[in-house]
Amino acid sequence: MSKFWSDRVKTTKPYTYGEQPKDKKYIKLNTNENPYPVSKLAIEAMKAAVNDDLKLYPDPTCFELRSEIAAYYGVDKDEVFVGNGSDEVLAFSFMAFFNRGDKVIYPDISYSFYDVYAGLLGVESERIPLNEDFSIPVEKYKNKNIGILIANPNAPTGVCLTLSEIEDIVSSNPHSLVLVDEAYIDFGGETAISLTKKYDNLLVSQTFSKSRSLAGMRVGFAIGDKKLIEALERIKNSINSYTIDRVAIAGATASIRDVEHFEATRRLVIETRERVVPCLEKLAFTVLPSKANFIFAKHESISGQTLYEQLKHRGILVRHFAKPRIEDYLRISIGSDAEMDAFLSVLEDIVKSYK
Amino acid sequence: MSKFWSDRVKTTKPYTYGEQPKDKKYIKLNTNENPYPVSKLAIEAMKAAVNDDLKLYPDPTCFELRSEIAAYYGVDKDEVFVGNGSDEVLAFSFMAFFNRGDKVIYPDISYSFYDVYAGLLGVESERIPLNEDFSIPVEKYKNKNIGILIANPNAPTGVCLTLSEIEDIVSSNPHSLVLVDEAYIDFGGETAISLTKKYDNLLVSQTFSKSRSLAGMRVGFAIGDKKLIEALERIKNSINSYTIDRVAIAGATASIRDVEHFEATRRLVIETRERVVPCLEKLAFTVLPSKANFIFAKHESISGQTLYEQLKHRGILVRHFAKPRIEDYLRISIGSDAEMDAFLSVLEDIVKSYK
Repeated sequence: MSKFWSDRVKTTKPYTYGEQPKDKKYIKLNTNENPYPVSKLAIEAMKAAVNDDLKLYPDPTCFELRSEIAAYYGVDKDEVFVGNGSDEVLAFSFMAFFNRGDKVIYPDISYSFYDVYAGLLGVESERIPLNEDFSIPVEKYKNKNIGILIANPNAPTGVCLTLSEIEDIVSSNPHSLVLVDEAYIDFGGETAISLTKKYDNLLVSQTFSKSRSLAGMRVGFAIGDKKLIEALERIKNSINSYTIDRVAIAGATASIRDVEHFEATRRLVIETRERVVPCLEKLAFTVLPSKANFIFAKHESISGQTLYEQLKHRGILVRHFAKPRIEDYLRISIGSDAEMDAFLSVLEDIVKSYK
Repeated sequence: MSKFWSDRVKTTKPYTYGEQPKDKKYIKLNTNENPYPVSKLAIEAMKAAVNDDLKLYPDPTCFELRSEIAAYYGVDKDEVFVGNGSDEVLAFSFMAFFNRGDKVIYPDISYSFYDVYAGLLGVESERIPLNEDFSIPVEKYKNKNIGILIANPNAPTGVCLTLSEIEDIVSSNPHSLVLVDEAYIDFGGETAISLTKKYDNLLVSQTFSKSRSLAGMRVGFAIGDKKLIEALERIKNSINSYTIDRVAIAGATASIRDVEHFEATRRLVIETRERVVPCLEKLAFTVLPSKANFIFAKHESISGQTLYEQLKHRGILVRHFAKPRIEDYLRISIGSDAEMDAFLSVLEDIVKSYK
């Protein structure tokens, strides 16, 4: 603490990101990165962008990237906002759509950054308990007409609502913003982007960090009614006019164009996930139904903390949240087949040693 | 306007960045970019960083870059904060050190983003008029003990305070934060970074966009007491844990190491500036003494608006601010010698045509 700190610094509880240890080489299944390479077209575009034009500011409107995203999703470019990762898009959304003292609702178990944004901005949050099976109780989000925030698929559970469930929530709250965070939608869920044409209260955010293997380049986006996008632009241009650098713009634009690579790699992740789930079940794990690039699983007798520690000791990092209801679960990112085989083999040893 | 907008979106007046027209090729002397190339070492480092590791998140602590900046400036890495351009560093500083309703002072003529940050965050700003000669009235910043913000050299004037003037301000306000925005310091001013060792209320921000020819990559930093840096980290980690991508980290780190290139190119900018000033004076311009990579100049009889338009019509972009006291001035970035010769030649024609 220091006498120079503002009240918001004193009271905020910053987000805790997944550990990035440097002490040794781990199989990293803890931050939901994509095991498959960046699109070759994106690599080429980024290499080409590393030139003397870097002395010039990037396009603050990200015109080309927004146009490409718009074309891909069949919306207008004025319905697309681009940010420095979807975390920035979410933070700007809190600033753009919620006042101090406003109330927003979201699941009690969800992306923990939502609590951080709410705390930083003085937004009151009501956390609606997930059902016993970790599904979202859709009825409790209907006709609320206060801000609604839903990660779909949810994190860290991986459980996904259907498009018609999302539409039920959006259509029954015409006077409040519904923000659907689709960071993981490309691994089996159905995006709500098509609904943004019909509902002016729906904002959908996505990221290049997961299904597009570009976590290292920090690009996310939101799609919604152009008045919503204008609000995000106003916030951005009140903080930092140029949030996306030239290389990131080039890489993200090329990545959207490389449909083939995108389709092939997301299919591989899904296939690996579907292969790993029964293997975990054989080891006496309960695995939640996942539409994400991670699975959320609990052993019948060994605690989450123990499994996390034993795996780390054996060179495998997964994510463990020491929180009510989920303290015995592990969130395991879907790595390559070789990584998952190594993980399963180590896990089998650990489980046997506890028998 | 939309019913979903928060109050802060409704009331904020976003920053207006320098125009980036796409209709034709201009000589761009309007956004203070560096005419000299990016460091070759930085280009190499960025090209090398465009690889499959981009599927992984960047280091959220920017350990290597902060260490390199710290070593260069002779401070500890815990005294260095890195942000997505110095605009983000300044925005985070407003969030970290000023409460809603707090008062900050800065010059009436200065970087116009300060008004935007204050407006967005509900910070009250008192703008202290510059002296008649556009110098900063140092006495009016002493013993205030409210937040103080000074661009040094000031923008858009280019006028610079000495280190001892800065120290007078910092030492006489021990109970309030003094933020010195040194975006342009490398073109002839003396940085106040050395004072951060002595004063825990001083935060100095700088950028890679000007003297390091990396505007396209969005990297800025702040140096100050580690408690100040901790506050900035807390804000960052409450908005977006990973603000700087892998390529930007690599480029900025290499750029700091390339002392030779940095020294050579900033010297060239200074030499060109010193050569151009008397040429403008010969054309009946008053030119403020500049320690920046731009000059601020007024013609004895032709209005700023007219000169701006005539120059644009002839393919040369400069920046014109339609604001009290400075509406007849042009802010002219220092380009290459060839660009400045073209500018001077066109300007001479325009001035002659108005005789």
